[in-house]
Amino acid sequence: MDTDRLRSAVDWRDGRLEVVDQTLLPGQLRVVELATVAEVVDALRRLVVRGAPAIGVAAAFGVVVGLDQALREDPGGLAAARAALHRTAAELEAARPTAVNLRWAVRRVVAAAAAADGAGELRRRALAEAERILEEDREACRRIGEAGRVELASRRRLLTHCNTGRLATAGIGTALAVVYAKAAAGEPVEVLASETRPLLQGARLTAWELVDAGIPVTVLADTAAGAALAGGLVDGVLVGCDRVARNGDAANKIGTYALAVLAHANRVPFYVVGPLSSFDPEAADGSRIVIEQRPAAEVSTLAGSRLAPEAAGVWNPAFDVTPAELVTAFITDAGVLRPPFGTSIAAALATRERVERPLRRPGGSAASRRRPGSAAGRPPPPAG
Amino acid sequence: MDTDRLRSAVDWRDGRLEVVDQTLLPGQLRVVELATVAEVVDALRRLVVRGAPAIGVAAAFGVVVGLDQALREDPGGLAAARAALHRTAAELEAARPTAVNLRWAVRRVVAAAAAADGAGELRRRALAEAERILEEDREACRRIGEAGRVELASRRRLLTHCNTGRLATAGIGTALAVVYAKAAAGEPVEVLASETRPLLQGARLTAWELVDAGIPVTVLADTAAGAALAGGLVDGVLVGCDRVARNGDAANKIGTYALAVLAHANRVPFYVVGPLSSFDPEAADGSRIVIEQRPAAEVSTLAGSRLAPEAAGVWNPAFDVTPAELVTAFITDAGVLRPPFGTSIAAALATRERVERPLRRPGGSAASRRRPGSAAGRPPPPAG
Repeated sequence: MDTDRLRSAVDWRDGRLEVVDQTLLPGQLRVVELATVAEVVDALRRLVVRGAPAIGVAAAFGVVVGLDQALREDPGGLAAARAALHRTAAELEAARPTAVNLRWAVRRVVAAAAAADGAGELRRRALAEAERILEEDREACRRIGEAGRVELASRRRLLTHCNTGRLATAGIGTALAVVYAKAAAGEPVEVLASETRPLLQGARLTAWELVDAGIPVTVLADTAAGAALAGGLVDGVLVGCDRVARNGDAANKIGTYALAVLAHANRVPFYVVGPLSSFDPEAADGSRIVIEQRPAAEVSTLAGSRLAPEAAGVWNPAFDVTPAELVTAFITDAGVLRPPFGTSIAAALATRERVERPLRRPGGSAASRRRPGSAAGRPPPPAG
Repeated sequence: MDTDRLRSAVDWRDGRLEVVDQTLLPGQLRVVELATVAEVVDALRRLVVRGAPAIGVAAAFGVVVGLDQALREDPGGLAAARAALHRTAAELEAARPTAVNLRWAVRRVVAAAAAADGAGELRRRALAEAERILEEDREACRRIGEAGRVELASRRRLLTHCNTGRLATAGIGTALAVVYAKAAAGEPVEVLASETRPLLQGARLTAWELVDAGIPVTVLADTAAGAALAGGLVDGVLVGCDRVARNGDAANKIGTYALAVLAHANRVPFYVVGPLSSFDPEAADGSRIVIEQRPAAEVSTLAGSRLAPEAAGVWNPAFDVTPAELVTAFITDAGVLRPPFGTSIAAALATRERVERPLRRPGGSAASRRRPGSAAGRPPPPAG
């Protein structure tokens, strides 16, 4: 359905997974239901829903969608439900390779549900875990925004890349959460949004949601970011992340690495912003991160127009890796992580592990694993 | 008229100024006549003809177009012809502010023609000087190509930005002349072409003319250039220039500065390629170079599609300035200029001055100022 205002980029309403179709923005704000696993996978691949945290939330509910498909065919079958759980998880994990939140969220749902001793209980646990992931994401966005607001208190003109806001998460965003937190606190803030070719998430999505929120935003071609930095037009660079390795190497939207090098050359602080769910304890450094290659047509055509001749080759990686030494700090839901990142990231992940492990104990009921307060919308206590 | 193959991006045929309409590529190769000064100015502003050397050649003939307009109204009037000469020159110089070739070419034509003692003679001298500028540009392209071929003998995979080839000059190009010279010598060469937002001269024009020439070309989004350099996919970066200051600071298409910083960070040599006519002896350094700001619609719309919401601001500088210290060397029609650039550029410009000054003496006939050989297509002797 078409709607007037953005409520949430990804949500679970009346037993249905609903997402904003981001391929239609800025022209049209349309909410679509994803009713089958195939539809969820397709939506992830076509970037109908995108942004590492939103991908995680959508995939978590995607597992429930897969269970519902199985239970419609065999309402009481525990074996069938378990098989559907694992099959759906594998299909969803394979949809996109780079954002670690996808794998992290799907595995959380599987771990929470797998040990249930009935099909209905399995589905209830899966749903409860997906709902908790969504609530945690909203809360992580709020914490990130507040940590970033304090960190960047004196910095007004912020350059960002791609989209890391309300369209990229279930909450107010990651890098853009900092902008929203500054605006909500009445502090002056304006955004330079690099358009982010090939899919123009900066021009289409970031500019749209900041205009929607009444925050000043100026779009520039990716080619102009260097001139903006060299010309003293930028007080800080804020980007999101799709996967951060243990040493602080950070995979994010293609073009992020160039901004990091340019910020470093011009002594502008460069922040990578995201929840701990975007940190991958299994990746020692950036060389372990798989970079997704996307179709040539994303570069060579646009809205039906041919931009490059058909006979030319195209190279279209979706992400690049920024080496840790170019990152000023990570702004996360566990606070600001500073160099040396090996140490600060390990400490933050250890805290998360302590918080999550008891929650995942087999046999615990979904209700008992819900954090106090989150169901009523009140913030849970700090995780670390 | 539509045509099958590219002959020359800008040419004077049967008393008419003809240019390829580059706004229609890669879809259509169409040659259009520019019959009035207003049409020439409009073609320069809309980038129907673009590329610093091609701009210079088109503007030189634009002066002749202006004289022809005046002479049609008042065939014998020397005063009217002189007035038209200066008025046309001023209109053409104001069409675009950054490429120094425009001012340089127009002033050469004015200097060659102004002292004539009859309207017909004035027009003949103007045309002869414009024709010489065109011939010199073709020859400069050939020399640049050969100098670059020798300089980059061991380098196969070349990254380039914007378009610097047969569409940007009257000859085989500047940075792309090096590619054409390598290919002509049977040396292996392949090109990575950054698409060059906002107007996509890399995707639309460079890819088109290299495909046309049978040279392997791969297009990438501007955002992907950093990953290509960091990933070891590039043996050298070659870019053109719109204006080079005396100290070696170089204005070129927006995005060039970022490539220079990225090449430097990844220890890939970075060459600025162009004729001496792109060097501005009046600019001590890059801070003296005026950067053209272009319309917002170039960024916020494409082929009738809206990319960014109307309410967002747009910042759209057409050029940036690369500091001299990021340039490995300049490849010019006077050979390869190496650091310290203050010295090497001054020496090259002094040589040009020695060659050009006697040619511009008032009263010398156009014929006597034509270099031996150039009318017959044979190369003139080296200028320095």
